[in-house]
Amino acid sequence: MNPDILKERRSATFDIEKLTNILDGGPEKTKRRREIESLAFNDPEFDGVNPNFLSRSERYSEAIRKSSRMILKLREYGITDPEEINLFKHCVHPDRPEPLDLHMAMFLPTLRNQATPEQMDRFYTPAWNLEIIGTYAQTEMGHGTHLRGLETTATYDPATQEFVLNSPTISSIKWWPGGLGKTSNHAIVLAQLYTQGNCHGLHAFIVLLRDMKTHIPLPGVVVGDIGPKFGFNEVDNGYLKLENIRIPRENMLMKFAKVEPDGTYVKPPRAKLTYGTMVFMRSWIVGGSSQALSRACTIAIRYSAVRHQSETRPGEPEPQILDYQTQQYKLFPLLAMAYAFHFVGQYMKQTYLRITGDITKGDFDELPELHALSAGLKAFTTWAVSSAVEVCRMACGGHGYSCSSAFPDIYVRFTPSCTYEGENTVMMLQTARHLMKSYRQAEAGQQLSGIVSYLNDKVQPQPVTARPTVVDINDLASLVEVYKLRAANLVELAAKSIQQELQHRRSQEDAWNNSAIDLVRASDAHCHYVVVKLFTDKLRDISDTGVHSVMSTLALLYALQGITKNSGDFLQAGLLSVPQVLQTSVRIKELLAQLRPDAVALGDAFDHNDKKLNSVLGRYDGNVYENMFEWARSSPLNATEVHESFHKYLKPLRSKL
Amino acid sequence: MNPDILKERRSATFDIEKLTNILDGGPEKTKRRREIESLAFNDPEFDGVNPNFLSRSERYSEAIRKSSRMILKLREYGITDPEEINLFKHCVHPDRPEPLDLHMAMFLPTLRNQATPEQMDRFYTPAWNLEIIGTYAQTEMGHGTHLRGLETTATYDPATQEFVLNSPTISSIKWWPGGLGKTSNHAIVLAQLYTQGNCHGLHAFIVLLRDMKTHIPLPGVVVGDIGPKFGFNEVDNGYLKLENIRIPRENMLMKFAKVEPDGTYVKPPRAKLTYGTMVFMRSWIVGGSSQALSRACTIAIRYSAVRHQSETRPGEPEPQILDYQTQQYKLFPLLAMAYAFHFVGQYMKQTYLRITGDITKGDFDELPELHALSAGLKAFTTWAVSSAVEVCRMACGGHGYSCSSAFPDIYVRFTPSCTYEGENTVMMLQTARHLMKSYRQAEAGQQLSGIVSYLNDKVQPQPVTARPTVVDINDLASLVEVYKLRAANLVELAAKSIQQELQHRRSQEDAWNNSAIDLVRASDAHCHYVVVKLFTDKLRDISDTGVHSVMSTLALLYALQGITKNSGDFLQAGLLSVPQVLQTSVRIKELLAQLRPDAVALGDAFDHNDKKLNSVLGRYDGNVYENMFEWARSSPLNATEVHESFHKYLKPLRSKL
Repeated sequence: MNPDILKERRSATFDIEKLTNILDGGPEKTKRRREIESLAFNDPEFDGVNPNFLSRSERYSEAIRKSSRMILKLREYGITDPEEINLFKHCVHPDRPEPLDLHMAMFLPTLRNQATPEQMDRFYTPAWNLEIIGTYAQTEMGHGTHLRGLETTATYDPATQEFVLNSPTISSIKWWPGGLGKTSNHAIVLAQLYTQGNCHGLHAFIVLLRDMKTHIPLPGVVVGDIGPKFGFNEVDNGYLKLENIRIPRENMLMKFAKVEPDGTYVKPPRAKLTYGTMVFMRSWIVGGSSQALSRACTIAIRYSAVRHQSETRPGEPEPQILDYQTQQYKLFPLLAMAYAFHFVGQYMKQTYLRITGDITKGDFDELPELHALSAGLKAFTTWAVSSAVEVCRMACGGHGYSCSSAFPDIYVRFTPSCTYEGENTVMMLQTARHLMKSYRQAEAGQQLSGIVSYLNDKVQPQPVTARPTVVDINDLASLVEVYKLRAANLVELAAKSIQQELQHRRSQEDAWNNSAIDLVRASDAHCHYVVVKLFTDKLRDISDTGVHSVMSTLALLYALQGITKNSGDFLQAGLLSVPQVLQTSVRIKELLAQLRPDAVALGDAFDHNDKKLNSVLGRYDGNVYENMFEWARSSPLNATEVHESFHKYLKPLRSKL
Repeated sequence: MNPDILKERRSATFDIEKLTNILDGGPEKTKRRREIESLAFNDPEFDGVNPNFLSRSERYSEAIRKSSRMILKLREYGITDPEEINLFKHCVHPDRPEPLDLHMAMFLPTLRNQATPEQMDRFYTPAWNLEIIGTYAQTEMGHGTHLRGLETTATYDPATQEFVLNSPTISSIKWWPGGLGKTSNHAIVLAQLYTQGNCHGLHAFIVLLRDMKTHIPLPGVVVGDIGPKFGFNEVDNGYLKLENIRIPRENMLMKFAKVEPDGTYVKPPRAKLTYGTMVFMRSWIVGGSSQALSRACTIAIRYSAVRHQSETRPGEPEPQILDYQTQQYKLFPLLAMAYAFHFVGQYMKQTYLRITGDITKGDFDELPELHALSAGLKAFTTWAVSSAVEVCRMACGGHGYSCSSAFPDIYVRFTPSCTYEGENTVMMLQTARHLMKSYRQAEAGQQLSGIVSYLNDKVQPQPVTARPTVVDINDLASLVEVYKLRAANLVELAAKSIQQELQHRRSQEDAWNNSAIDLVRASDAHCHYVVVKLFTDKLRDISDTGVHSVMSTLALLYALQGITKNSGDFLQAGLLSVPQVLQTSVRIKELLAQLRPDAVALGDAFDHNDKKLNSVLGRYDGNVYENMFEWARSSPLNATEVHESFHKYLKPLRSKL
């Protein structure tokens, strides 16, 4: 163990294991997590060369090898709980998506939700046994977030009782689905359903893509890999062009809507509430953002403890870079953010389970609000973490750029979450729609419930005595209040912008678009308030004194940092005075110094196994440099002492000059 | 030509070519640039497969192939001007560093500056003819910015009249030099010079690394590639461990300092002013930041003109995404920033040439200030652009993640400039040191000259009547003034923080470190002021009415956007009122609408040739989708219909389940 990092661990003021238990949701959950992790990490077949040393084709092949073994092992160990499967998968493919992701996470669940019993027999069982490998083909080259714009058609032909699927334009080619390029032999294709001359909108169809024996694409199926991307090198995100592909009528997923043999369209009994899945996916992304950020923070903080650089005093040894205030200012607020987002993800998941669980007390009234909130929080957390990972990387100097640090992998793995499952700006505007609706309801005198109820106070101002008088920047409850008032103020600003546009005789649509900047800003402030509130609320559940103390410091740092970064909002609304803003900056410096002895331990508490972290800079034992040298020596360009290009190009060049 | 993009070009309010000429520095410069570009772009040997389709080793090999031809062609065309060489290189390797970069940009120039005439004969001529290929080995695994910390030793042995070079520790292994891993047969090694028992600090030594015939590393030379990184895949950044390597005394670069045959050390006549090169390198980086950002903006804006998405009005066609206010708000301020940084880079280069040129009127007094400023501006621009490139990428939805967009390449190519040539936080603190010194001088009653002279007004407040009364947010001169006052205010805040720390009996070093957050903030505000000022100054040189008008709008947008992003600073210092800040947001929306018809043309004016842009999304003709499909189909995973991993892993798996 590196002596610096040993010293850091000894200086911790709290019990790391207790905090790990809180993050996991209890000691038994920590135990089970570690059990599953060790099943994967102790299996030498899941080891292998660093993927960054391989070509794209080799990376894909290695992923298929590991995933095949993963499926076998999951059966062998009897792991069937979706969360445990996911955990195991993340150890087999540390922080990398893999070609079977969509088969597991979309193809199988969509069958479960939308297939008829007959279809379950025909497709689900073979898919469970990986004879059928499927993907979910929704997005098209020219169509993403706006689903109604999708162009793929499925036209019913009553003569043969078949659907004829087509990609009528270049922009209608299915694009991006994971596992579509090379892996899948089936796809659930989303297409506009035409029957008896009418379009009935998007429906899902099961399409056979490849010969089940030879795996060769069927005639009329133009399928392949969309080429190299920022990350996701293991996944064959694919394209699919359908040229008059005929499938039997029974391949439309008909649990809800139906097409009769004669072509009669039967509407689904009622529009299904799809809120649930989206809320679940987004709460999972919020939690995932904490995972990515906590990994980046762990690496950067450990390395900053090991790394010595520059002189502060002439002649004295170079200090640990973690002792520089600028380094602390970069990293500690991000550590606080990682904890904040973890607790927000936990809250969202728990609320979702409470609402949708079969426990009788479920109160579905909360779901629309949670749904609206989850869109904004997904955007808020992924934007913040995408930038934050890069701040961590750049805090590590040159070595942060090396793949041995793991930072490049963390970034390219994470940043797509700003776009998938709902593009972030669109998500912010969705939340804004809910806020605007709530604001109008409050204006109309309606009493709002839930998180947005603060808007009642905004439009129906309280008597002066009921308002908070002096904000105490050391008191979290007081800060939650001030964040709430900031949100209320910006929601009002956006609402007024729309009202003004309408007064200038603009259409509803133009008024909305011309206020979009303000709407995004309002959603952002709303989400920020919710995060500060949930982090503060979480402190109530922490009984251990040591952990409670350090978590309170982090929560305070998170809240105060948000104030200095957005001080204009707070000053503008008269919520804080200039001296208070100045005081906030001073207080932040004190908090950084206070957190300094706990920094490494706060990273440790996330309990990222070295095999999962996969970072030379972030090794638990801190032995960075010797291992970095080993890592470099094993990289493929060093397989030979003299690269072939010397003989091919450089040597012949000499005689020509 | 895509009809949308054609329409955009027709709507431009100014003459694109005239603006291009201003960016180039005159019509004749535009002409010459295009001549050189066409020499490279019309040479089919410089074409080749997209590097993203190749393995690391193939990428390196391809780069060596192209560079070898590049050297031949430069001789053939008689291109010898360093800027023209650089331009040609950037067309041969569009936006990619290559293995000979350090040979050309560091090895040869260092010889020119520091070699004796005898050394010039022995090394320069063979290096010019690429018999000797060299690199510049300074940074070590454990040592970057802080040069005094370097550990490599060169100990003089008078018995044999040789230096013995050693890497005494793991952390002393040379790390990162470009071209060191596989390409170079020589290196200029920076090492601590020991002779007659004394250490004389860092000196430069020419070390033979590989056999000149076989290219095999010499005994005691442990050299290789440091492995995959975030970008720079064409470059063999290397490591070098020296184990008792003996070189003749004459291989120390002895134009200035010397070691006599008996081991007597002769000091250099005077510490050489090295400001110049650093200023030049940094002004080059500032200009490069504009290059990177303008490429990203061009791609994002062109694609946003072509891309239609979502409905604003039910039943109507999907609008161009460039019509969404949120999209304009993402992209147009960045376009303004690209222009701002271009003019700042131009100013720095011109000032540097004016000062150091052999024209008699050179005023070297300005150099220290330009040097101090260049550190901060390097940090200010690279941080801003590194984030901005990602904003442009994410503004393009899913396709921004595809390597076909060029965004991943632009980002990984550019972001290292936040770290090399001086780590950004260290750079900001360097500028801060100059600001603090100037502040103290002003406090002591000294009359400052140059850019920092505003600090005189701060410490010697003007009579109330002399101060600006009302800020006009539509007047650039007024905005320059308000940025200046903000900078003065934050410089004062940092100075006071240091003073307070000292009053609490902290040491100078601790006082500095405990104020580092404020110091960085002060430098940032200072740089921001300089950028707004230089952009505004530049407008005076633009005589064409149409160009002047659109550039004024961009400058105003840049200035106002900076105010809303930092409104707390302006409110806190009492420089702007709350109504003015609100008005600023409204004005920004108007400017976005005003710039909308010129957006595509403002990208075009940067005149990035399609071959240089190398982006399917950003094609000049806007024919995105058909070309994206072609690009994907040609990617290597599609070379076969069935990937070998199907037969190897997936098919056998079926029987096991």
